[in-house]
Amino acid sequence: MRAARQRQARLTKPAGSLGRLEDLSIRIAAMTGRLDPPLVQAVVFTLAADHGVVEEGVSAYPAEVTAQMVLNFARAGAAINVLAHALGARVLVADVGVKVDLPEQPGVRAVKVRRGTANITRGPAMTLDEAASAIEVGRRLVREENPDIAITGDMGIGNTTASAAVICALTGLDPVLVVGRGTGVDDAGLERKRDAVRRALAVNADAISGGGIDALTAVGGLEIAGLVGVILEAAASRTPVIVDGFISGAAALVATAIAPAAVHYLIASHLSQELGHAAVLSRLGLKPLLDLDLRLGEGTGGVLALPLVRASMRVLNEMATFEDAGVSGPLGPAP
Amino acid sequence: MRAARQRQARLTKPAGSLGRLEDLSIRIAAMTGRLDPPLVQAVVFTLAADHGVVEEGVSAYPAEVTAQMVLNFARAGAAINVLAHALGARVLVADVGVKVDLPEQPGVRAVKVRRGTANITRGPAMTLDEAASAIEVGRRLVREENPDIAITGDMGIGNTTASAAVICALTGLDPVLVVGRGTGVDDAGLERKRDAVRRALAVNADAISGGGIDALTAVGGLEIAGLVGVILEAAASRTPVIVDGFISGAAALVATAIAPAAVHYLIASHLSQELGHAAVLSRLGLKPLLDLDLRLGEGTGGVLALPLVRASMRVLNEMATFEDAGVSGPLGPAP
Repeated sequence: MRAARQRQARLTKPAGSLGRLEDLSIRIAAMTGRLDPPLVQAVVFTLAADHGVVEEGVSAYPAEVTAQMVLNFARAGAAINVLAHALGARVLVADVGVKVDLPEQPGVRAVKVRRGTANITRGPAMTLDEAASAIEVGRRLVREENPDIAITGDMGIGNTTASAAVICALTGLDPVLVVGRGTGVDDAGLERKRDAVRRALAVNADAISGGGIDALTAVGGLEIAGLVGVILEAAASRTPVIVDGFISGAAALVATAIAPAAVHYLIASHLSQELGHAAVLSRLGLKPLLDLDLRLGEGTGGVLALPLVRASMRVLNEMATFEDAGVSGPLGPAP
Repeated sequence: MRAARQRQARLTKPAGSLGRLEDLSIRIAAMTGRLDPPLVQAVVFTLAADHGVVEEGVSAYPAEVTAQMVLNFARAGAAINVLAHALGARVLVADVGVKVDLPEQPGVRAVKVRRGTANITRGPAMTLDEAASAIEVGRRLVREENPDIAITGDMGIGNTTASAAVICALTGLDPVLVVGRGTGVDDAGLERKRDAVRRALAVNADAISGGGIDALTAVGGLEIAGLVGVILEAAASRTPVIVDGFISGAAALVATAIAPAAVHYLIASHLSQELGHAAVLSRLGLKPLLDLDLRLGEGTGGVLALPLVRASMRVLNEMATFEDAGVSGPLGPAP
């Protein structure tokens, strides 16, 4: 980190003139312990699962869309496929908890922990064992893929509701400040969603008070738990993690509740349009690189930030210094 | 434009969920008249020139740095070289008005109109003929390079002072709202800079009242004039132009004063840290894609926005539609 900061000051540009790219390169040097970490193998971990709370009418789309979109990912037809291909990342799709049985197919990792969560307005989403298993699934995927840089992504109809519940549980914020429109519910849907989160928090109040993994177990989701594992394993192996939007933010809150030092390995990709995401980032102490009114998930915001992340390290390593280039430094103070 | 909007609505994602990327793809379709314009050949027009106003003590760096940096560009040691190489653009460096004679060398186009501008605190920067010649140089460079997408860039010690003067002249804003620290002047330098802009506006008041090209002639710079030409020629040939920061913003104000419809071909890359840039973008009605506290120029912010611009068109053209992918659309309103 110190070496990166010193080198930034010697490059042929006014000190600080590349703004947040400079800070980012210094952070990545700290994460990886290297001035020139390879950031070639970028893997988007797009984890999919269903949510029992969908029966409360909290989503603009029917639950069957989760499975349909997993097949769309497998056929490379979704936004994350197009963006990852365009920007130099590989998409790993994993079924951590889709409700229906999916046909075996290349391009989808079958690592189902259970068939969707239970309805969180009536009790816990899953058991502690299931949450731990889903976290371990995420960790294992990272170990198997061994990326230079990880990107978190998600697919799950209903998962903005579960994420909002996790965020409220861990921050103490009122649902009215956290619950947003997700894929696009109308005003009545938004009210049902807020109400569902309130009831989920009330019925699971005892469990939630246990913090991180207990809140995840009580009101979270299987893809959220998987992403907690992705983040924990990446951080443990000094691999930078680009965190996507709202669902990934909920996972980051849980991961950093379990292992606070994991926050040093997180790069916030974008500020989601989903209400409550800004509060999550503020709680994590992270500033997003992009603000493009995105609210799609899948890892799309994470992949869009990847060129900036890579570019920051290219600048650090490839620019000439003032000495090398024979360029004069700044003038001293006027006499 | 209409076809692009219709297609965006059919892609397998909630309508609007890719936010500003969707709007961008629709605008680019309108600019080019195509759903799938090639955006392969991206050229950064990094135009260099010197500024007589530097003798007023307005820059943190000595004037000789302009020429030194042009040589640094030629050796591919500068930030713009590294970023363009990393992100898939080609850098075209042109000497439109560097004060000293540069050695002939590959990688620098020798198109000098005059050896730097005159000191704008004492009279006009250049003659109207020289401004017109520099604009024509910019137009010719675009015709010769014939890019799919153009990016504006600049190098010129003192050019934030000249740009601030142009911006004040064309917007009527007070220098205190426009003049910033450029490459990093201290408080005394900032006061000298504001004072220089005030005096430049006063001494050239008659000329400035003529508007666009007259203000450019009176208080602008040769690289700024060249960039006006780049923008005008790109717009005339329906080529999108990614506009970099503060200096490029001044050029865009002049270009759109000359040809108001040129604004439809402009993509604002980033919000510069330089004071007054937000006012320029607001005047142009453009919202920047990035906000990374950059203040380097050279075209660096423009190149950093390029992956987002290209990605927006890849999404439009390569994603599956709901029909193709067999994915259910949104639920109707609840009964």
